[in-house]
Amino acid sequence: MTSQLFIDGARLYRSLAALGELGAFTDPHSGLRGVCRLALTAEDGAGRRHVVEQMREAGLTVRVDRIGNVFGRRAGLDDRLRPVMLGSHIDSVATAGRFDGCLGVLGGLEVVRTLNDAGRATLRPLVVAFFTDEEGARFGTDMLGSAVATGRIALEDAHALRDRNGLSVRDELAAIGFLGDDPPRLPAPFAYLECHVEQGPVLRAAGLDLGVVAGVQGICWHELTIVGKAAHAGTTPMALRADAGVAASRINLALRDLVASGRFGAEFRATMGVLLPHPGLVNVVPGEVTATVDLRNPDSALLDAAEAAIIAFYAEAARMEGVTVTHRRTARTPYVGFDAELGRRIAAAADARGLSHAGIVSGAGHDAQELARLCPAAMIFVPGEHDGISHNPRELSTERQCADGVNVLLDVACALADAPATPEDQP
Amino acid sequence: MTSQLFIDGARLYRSLAALGELGAFTDPHSGLRGVCRLALTAEDGAGRRHVVEQMREAGLTVRVDRIGNVFGRRAGLDDRLRPVMLGSHIDSVATAGRFDGCLGVLGGLEVVRTLNDAGRATLRPLVVAFFTDEEGARFGTDMLGSAVATGRIALEDAHALRDRNGLSVRDELAAIGFLGDDPPRLPAPFAYLECHVEQGPVLRAAGLDLGVVAGVQGICWHELTIVGKAAHAGTTPMALRADAGVAASRINLALRDLVASGRFGAEFRATMGVLLPHPGLVNVVPGEVTATVDLRNPDSALLDAAEAAIIAFYAEAARMEGVTVTHRRTARTPYVGFDAELGRRIAAAADARGLSHAGIVSGAGHDAQELARLCPAAMIFVPGEHDGISHNPRELSTERQCADGVNVLLDVACALADAPATPEDQP
Repeated sequence: MTSQLFIDGARLYRSLAALGELGAFTDPHSGLRGVCRLALTAEDGAGRRHVVEQMREAGLTVRVDRIGNVFGRRAGLDDRLRPVMLGSHIDSVATAGRFDGCLGVLGGLEVVRTLNDAGRATLRPLVVAFFTDEEGARFGTDMLGSAVATGRIALEDAHALRDRNGLSVRDELAAIGFLGDDPPRLPAPFAYLECHVEQGPVLRAAGLDLGVVAGVQGICWHELTIVGKAAHAGTTPMALRADAGVAASRINLALRDLVASGRFGAEFRATMGVLLPHPGLVNVVPGEVTATVDLRNPDSALLDAAEAAIIAFYAEAARMEGVTVTHRRTARTPYVGFDAELGRRIAAAADARGLSHAGIVSGAGHDAQELARLCPAAMIFVPGEHDGISHNPRELSTERQCADGVNVLLDVACALADAPATPEDQP
Repeated sequence: MTSQLFIDGARLYRSLAALGELGAFTDPHSGLRGVCRLALTAEDGAGRRHVVEQMREAGLTVRVDRIGNVFGRRAGLDDRLRPVMLGSHIDSVATAGRFDGCLGVLGGLEVVRTLNDAGRATLRPLVVAFFTDEEGARFGTDMLGSAVATGRIALEDAHALRDRNGLSVRDELAAIGFLGDDPPRLPAPFAYLECHVEQGPVLRAAGLDLGVVAGVQGICWHELTIVGKAAHAGTTPMALRADAGVAASRINLALRDLVASGRFGAEFRATMGVLLPHPGLVNVVPGEVTATVDLRNPDSALLDAAEAAIIAFYAEAARMEGVTVTHRRTARTPYVGFDAELGRRIAAAADARGLSHAGIVSGAGHDAQELARLCPAAMIFVPGEHDGISHNPRELSTERQCADGVNVLLDVACALADAPATPEDQP
């Protein structure tokens, strides 16, 4: 066994700060520095060029594919073997912090720098990757680049997506100079590892150093349109009302009842994030409401059952309030389980470093769930301060928290990168 | 007794249509013609000039006071006696129909025209009035002109109100040429009568021709700020949430429970018209909600009791969801009862014309409730089609419905205008 390496936590944290300045803004409420690096904007272009430059300085060979995914490759001793890939994304939502996505990319780069500093070669190549438009905040489809790379979304369909100004993914890739030449379908890596902030409160609340991500929850989204009758709040007797806002409130509380029933498991989560009454005036009974329902469950069958239950309640709420409730399913992704053997390696590496950890199910989607179709994939979660708030300038993981996650990434990546050839390693 | 007069329903209806073209727009959803004549805008100025011209053509002497209220006076046989005033408003909300307010003003004018055509004089003067900014839609304070005329609001305070662009009532009055010379305090009329669309479904649903308005409901408005914790809908366990949207939904349903309890009377109405979660995204637990509560009751004590009950529930909802709920009382007006003797006269006039009627409590505020502080005041309600929808281009009362109301207005106004002098008629 080679002597244990340590990544440079301060260097990693500085690199997060430097990337966080590209697309930075000062939040008017908190005075905090936030990041707006929506996919394929000029800011994203600046961030991409910055990371590519860092990759080249670390000796990586950079290639860009047709959907703008970027791969920085460190040659292996046997460079024909399938690489170990470390990746995530650097695009952001409009009101982001500096950790979401970037930790996985710059963490991968820090792994490479640490190996370089130690003069340590690996049998297999190492690839540091960042994927296009993981957030979906601009073009409406999340995990876009990784979904194209793994064949779930056709390149042409991805290129044709447009933002609200009518600008297409293809044109915007070209505009920032990241419409690359590499074919869109990624050859299967040997393994894929992604270190990411948890974006939730669980690890921090439990006082754990790391989360070993078992998989990504199944997700079901509905967009509801509830139509009643707008009416004067003073002149319309209660019995003659069809209040779309009350119907929406009933559905919101029904979600709570479904959770409380226990019928859909302890990990079932249900949220009404949007509830928008029209006309939205103090003295008008809401005549129409747009609302959303977000259901999550690591058990796909229980997710299906919860969806059926809430659909049944839509009809009940419609009957109670004399309104119509129509729903449109805007997302449905099944549970994606990560590779169990990689999970065990992550846990063992954490143990070896004396870091506390537990299994955790990701409530958010990640590029790793796309890569899991192509190769063994796994994720390491790092805790976040402030209840793990994310998509917000208050997003914060400490230097120590980030370094713990990337040290484990280093350990597992090195061990995998020295794994001997298998029959799947076709030249 | 003089022979019964009849107003010209077609002429009245044409005058409503003509005024409705000033500030008109075509509703993109329905294709219907709507009205946007926000107080003291250029459109309101055009409407005011149009009505003033009609008043002058009908022989009225027009005066304008310091808050822009307009009074068109038809001399009485004894012109020193207190006048009978017929009035309402011609300003509108942004998405109005052509009847709200205008029926009372143009109905008053139609009464004058009918008397003119019949060569009929009255002992007392008749005044047709329209009051500034009844809606409060632009400067935030409803019944503004009539409240200044009757002394509830000081002229200086009214002049200093500003719209969201910072323009003041005083400057905007001057800009449209309606900053008049008459003193702001109105000398008490002998009586005030206002014919108005019901703006609710009750009369139409009951098949009644008219409503004799007993008074205006007491109103209590709260603006709520509910603060929880914004959190990721996927990553945040249900037990760690502080969902401001769920708290708002609980309050919305608590309003229904208060109504259903029967504790606050059969006329108690409660509405949550605004419920606005922030950030309002499908996958984010609402961290903050702005909401409104509108309570109405013709019994002021029951209104107080209902307000106390919902305030108690705010604390309960805060406790249940781990949020804070703060409320600000943005309006509180007591029940205003109209003059019983005038109500009996309206009912008798309707009976004499074979029109069905019933007593009704107004759920909306009206200029008549301000005038009621100054003199005997009463209102006649005309039914509306489409469930009495108002503040909407679909607002519609038929020519027959409008004519019925104004014929009764004519009868009662004539009888009052021939009432002999009393000790209060100081020269």
